[in-house]
Amino acid sequence: MHQTTVTISTHQHMELVDITTQIQAELRASQIATGTCILFNPHTTAGLTINEGADPAVRTDLIKGLRQFVPLDYPFQHQEGNSPSHIMATLTGSSLTVLVENGTLLLGTWQKIFFCEYDGPRTRKVVCRISAS
Amino acid sequence: MHQTTVTISTHQHMELVDITTQIQAELRASQIATGTCILFNPHTTAGLTINEGADPAVRTDLIKGLRQFVPLDYPFQHQEGNSPSHIMATLTGSSLTVLVENGTLLLGTWQKIFFCEYDGPRTRKVVCRISAS
Amino acid sequence: MHQTTVTISTHQHMELVDITTQIQAELRASQIATGTCILFNPHTTAGLTINEGADPAVRTDLIKGLRQFVPLDYPFQHQEGNSPSHIMATLTGSSLTVLVENGTLLLGTWQKIFFCEYDGPRTRKVVCRISAS
Repeated sequence: MHQTTVTISTHQHMELVDITTQIQAELRASQIATGTCILFNPHTTAGLTINEGADPAVRTDLIKGLRQFVPLDYPFQHQEGNSPSHIMATLTGSSLTVLVENGTLLLGTWQKIFFCEYDGPRTRKVVCRISAS
Repeated sequence: MHQTTVTISTHQHMELVDITTQIQAELRASQIATGTCILFNPHTTAGLTINEGADPAVRTDLIKGLRQFVPLDYPFQHQEGNSPSHIMATLTGSSLTVLVENGTLLLGTWQKIFFCEYDGPRTRKVVCRISAS
Repeated sequence: MHQTTVTISTHQHMELVDITTQIQAELRASQIATGTCILFNPHTTAGLTINEGADPAVRTDLIKGLRQFVPLDYPFQHQEGNSPSHIMATLTGSSLTVLVENGTLLLGTWQKIFFCEYDGPRTRKVVCRISAS
């Protein structure tokens, strides 16, 4: 079992950051050929998702889409003012499970792994655990 | 491997219930130091999420936010009238994977584990399986 | 460990397809009694969810509900025109973890496993890995 914490610097209030290369580097370091890669996001205004990585417009549209329907100006109770970010975190989810086969992440042709920043810019962390099965 | 079914009593039509303490008790009972904790919700109008637990306003705002954009009065076909609850269940997800390290749940500073009741009040169950890895 | 790729033919632009029987057949073929079943969707305009399977109206209402709040006509940047499908994919999630006990999927009474087609009709694939624990 190989476990590390990956650091991600985000640069906008809300954005998707492609972390696939970082996770692939962890997989190579683990020398595990078959198993699972579990990614866990320990933040409450961020998430993890897998989606299209070929066209950067998709990740922009994902943020635009969320901002169209998650209420941004609703009179929420939480005084920090970032309740929309907490809602987006729950909609996206806090962890990902990716299968590992032949020493590679079993992703689809167009899939990349994204860290979803909903309350940045910040320095964020994701726990990456790769286990043989 | 340690598996139990945790019982949760909900008291409102829609609410988030912090079940972190119950899951931590299961982890202690398991005596497992390193591994994974998989939580599975067997209900179709409920979910599981990880979000901020420090300020109770966040869990209230999560329900308020969902009720702002999931259509509550749309003429759905399902005759039981709880289609909005089924939609919220799919948006939230039916399971959680939490890493276990040094006999503790590897949660972020502000993170708690919540059972999401979308069609209560009811007595609900969550399957908790803790496995060594 | 038993891993296969399940093929799913979808027939509408957006629909939920019950794949529970296909996954149960894989579980029987695996001869694994206790463990986990991880399903992974390698597509970026599709998802996997667990919800009510008894009344077919629920799966219809899930699509109707998503189409009510995910903006379908927003001026997205992605030129393929299927950004709403990518957004639904992220809202639903790309994988499912189901517990296996006594050689059966540990699903609730009303739960079925659905492949969520958001940009069909197409021939789709889902990776199914069943591991003993």
